[in-house]
Amino acid sequence: MERSFKVIPIGVIRKTDDRTWIEIDKCYKDALLGLEGFSHIHVMYWFHENDTPELRNTLQVHPRKDPVNPLTGVFATHSPVRPNLIALSLCRILSIQETTIAVDGLDARDGSPLIDIKCYIPYDQTIPVFTPAWV
Amino acid sequence: MERSFKVIPIGVIRKTDDRTWIEIDKCYKDALLGLEGFSHIHVMYWFHENDTPELRNTLQVHPRKDPVNPLTGVFATHSPVRPNLIALSLCRILSIQETTIAVDGLDARDGSPLIDIKCYIPYDQTIPVFTPAWV
Repeated sequence: MERSFKVIPIGVIRKTDDRTWIEIDKCYKDALLGLEGFSHIHVMYWFHENDTPELRNTLQVHPRKDPVNPLTGVFATHSPVRPNLIALSLCRILSIQETTIAVDGLDARDGSPLIDIKCYIPYDQTIPVFTPAWV
Repeated sequence: MERSFKVIPIGVIRKTDDRTWIEIDKCYKDALLGLEGFSHIHVMYWFHENDTPELRNTLQVHPRKDPVNPLTGVFATHSPVRPNLIALSLCRILSIQETTIAVDGLDARDGSPLIDIKCYIPYDQTIPVFTPAWV
């Protein structure tokens, strides 16, 4: 299958030492209607600094770049190197003003291209979840 | 900004009446190392049936296609129409055999192109979360 899909930036992530915010392109303002009803969002952005054939073909990493953590497949991590360079972060909304969303908990580089925002709907917290020790 | 990013399919989602599984392209087998340590994964796929200019420019919907739900911006939903047609689902892993993962809780169309898998790390469940009434 040689198909590919086109992802367009819909905004940009900005970061200073003490603040992080999302600047959404003004043409998408209507897509924010009702977002103020949520406390948290999933933010998707592109690991643009890693968009090279070599890094897109890196399939295993030591999680959190710590050699003590076992070599792990990128699909079993949130590593910023992976075949499709999509980042996923859960963030708390601090404020929404026009097309700017101030957030807490977003560990992105300043200038990262924003590609999607989705509301966060809590999962059933009675589901028993397990994870490896490195988490 | 006229840049765009290229997303490639890494597999496909298969579905019958009673089973759902993910077939990952064999060239990505190494990227699955350690996935068996997790109970749940985030699965990302492409809403390929909606990849038209019109649907990518639809910025507001009635959530869950229910007209009773208030008109809402797509970024405040998980709607399958949005500027970048990235779907995000949390799934329970039922089994992993070679490059096939049987999952529970994935509401995708049969044949949907898989674009990423990430481990699911539970968030701090002491965070107070709120959502709108339609959720």
